[in-house]
Amino acid sequence: MAGGPSTPELAIAVGRAGGLGFLAAGYKSTPAVAAEIAAVRAATAAPFGVNLFVPGPPAAHADLVAAYGGRLEAEARRQGARLGQPRQDDDEWEAKLDLVTRERVAVVSFTFGCPTHETITRLHEGDIAVWVTVTNVREAAQARDARADALVVQGSEAGGHRGGFNDAEGGGTGLIALLRLVARSVELPLVATGGIADGAAVAAVLCAGASAAQVGTALMLAPEAGTPTAQRALLPEPIPTRLTRAFTGRLARGMVNRFMVEHDRAAPSGYPAIHHLTGPLRAAARARGDADAFNLWAGEAHELAQPQPAEAIVRRLGADARRVAAEVATRLQRP
Amino acid sequence: MAGGPSTPELAIAVGRAGGLGFLAAGYKSTPAVAAEIAAVRAATAAPFGVNLFVPGPPAAHADLVAAYGGRLEAEARRQGARLGQPRQDDDEWEAKLDLVTRERVAVVSFTFGCPTHETITRLHEGDIAVWVTVTNVREAAQARDARADALVVQGSEAGGHRGGFNDAEGGGTGLIALLRLVARSVELPLVATGGIADGAAVAAVLCAGASAAQVGTALMLAPEAGTPTAQRALLPEPIPTRLTRAFTGRLARGMVNRFMVEHDRAAPSGYPAIHHLTGPLRAAARARGDADAFNLWAGEAHELAQPQPAEAIVRRLGADARRVAAEVATRLQRP
Repeated sequence: MAGGPSTPELAIAVGRAGGLGFLAAGYKSTPAVAAEIAAVRAATAAPFGVNLFVPGPPAAHADLVAAYGGRLEAEARRQGARLGQPRQDDDEWEAKLDLVTRERVAVVSFTFGCPTHETITRLHEGDIAVWVTVTNVREAAQARDARADALVVQGSEAGGHRGGFNDAEGGGTGLIALLRLVARSVELPLVATGGIADGAAVAAVLCAGASAAQVGTALMLAPEAGTPTAQRALLPEPIPTRLTRAFTGRLARGMVNRFMVEHDRAAPSGYPAIHHLTGPLRAAARARGDADAFNLWAGEAHELAQPQPAEAIVRRLGADARRVAAEVATRLQRP
Repeated sequence: MAGGPSTPELAIAVGRAGGLGFLAAGYKSTPAVAAEIAAVRAATAAPFGVNLFVPGPPAAHADLVAAYGGRLEAEARRQGARLGQPRQDDDEWEAKLDLVTRERVAVVSFTFGCPTHETITRLHEGDIAVWVTVTNVREAAQARDARADALVVQGSEAGGHRGGFNDAEGGGTGLIALLRLVARSVELPLVATGGIADGAAVAAVLCAGASAAQVGTALMLAPEAGTPTAQRALLPEPIPTRLTRAFTGRLARGMVNRFMVEHDRAAPSGYPAIHHLTGPLRAAARARGDADAFNLWAGEAHELAQPQPAEAIVRRLGADARRVAAEVATRLQRP
């Protein structure tokens, strides 16, 4: 949940409930990530993870990005904001790797690509477990071959960015089907993610072969989450979600709003250049509370998010999963 | 599984395993459906269902359909076949309703729309249970208000046609998220469908709130299924699926092939006119065994389909679901 919802407070509360909290290192400076790690450590001895973005090659020709920027000039004027520099960067990849290695966090998960075998070995030498986000069977096999310890299996239902290796892959596969396909090909622990918003869904993904469930949107109404106020008001509403490149140049699922509708078709694949291009517009819209002009990342089950403390949410999901699994097991035992 | 895979033999075998077999009445003449009902009744006393297509308004302007037909002329010449008449029809709606009412089949399920309250009442008077296929919460509420007895909740993973009320709805929602959203809004038994190919997936959808699982692709390699030979060879392969209107003018999920790639973008929403237009081409391609030129409907988990007798498949799914649910329940009981 990079870009806002992820906070140290959220990771702390999740850990207090017996869950594995995560810090999103993407989009943040390395010192900011270091400060968040220190904040979690100061509050709890519970293990937690850090999520890193794997840098990729530039995805769009500069002229496509420039054309999209030209289109957004009117949007910027309308908002009284300036477009950002559409720069290509690596999100401080090496510095963040150094940081998590030095800090020996319990788990480092990766999004947008598979780290090399060398990188994974280096983390293993620090006793750090490596999880890689995958969206299809090919990526799962590649992550296994690079010696990942677990796979975060992201279904098409997931909010935010598609976490796979290639932005051209499209919308992905539904979570149950994907878990079954991956489980058949790769013998690694699977962490299911995508549209999991309550305990029944947790029980469902465990039946489908996952060792654990990873939730994002389900925590977005917790007071500990950094969810923008304007988005909090909309999450419980029956607003459809869609995949779009309009905000960042990389496919991501968000609630449909004006910016998405107006710019989706024009947006090229061009992450992170377009992320930087639209950044100031999005920040201005968030500050104004204009939910029609920034990214409302959310999974397909966002209406089920509950405004509860994160600790209560995690405990509820666990208890409900336990109850539902027992009920289904009992029902199926009947002659 | 209209248009080929559905056969009386398949419904009979599913019933023998304790499942509820279905006959697909869509695309068939009423006498042909009557003959299939008689064939099932002659072989078994087990209950079974019949699936009907609800007719809708014409979806495309005739000139859009004509333009698509013009584009397909080259395809027809290449195959030495003729295009069909792009006619608008109602799939013998009234005659088929009369048939299933007269025959008092156990269940009639509906696809592509919600029958009126009057139609449902008429079926209820014949002690026929009415199931309506839904793809979102709005459709679920409409079906409940029309007095449906159960909802077939179709996830985005499903092979073949999107079964919802409106072709403009797009790709739908992943099955777990959709089940959770529908279960919260509508108190009716839910039949889960979409990408369910093994017992673990059955256990998963039961945990997610379904009362039953409906499988299609999982049965397509059974000898009793009418699956085209050329498609049988491809089902176990890791070929991606996509939604397309290229074959029928209505969104349906199939394995990607040449016809889909070449014509997808040009195809308007125009069911059943385009279904009739391409029918002879598809029949010719099936007869030649040319899997690049007919519709390879399949769900997202098609690689998991097993070449077993249908009775063995249904029994395996049941036994594996029971085992998996018990394992997960036990695992979650641990302190």
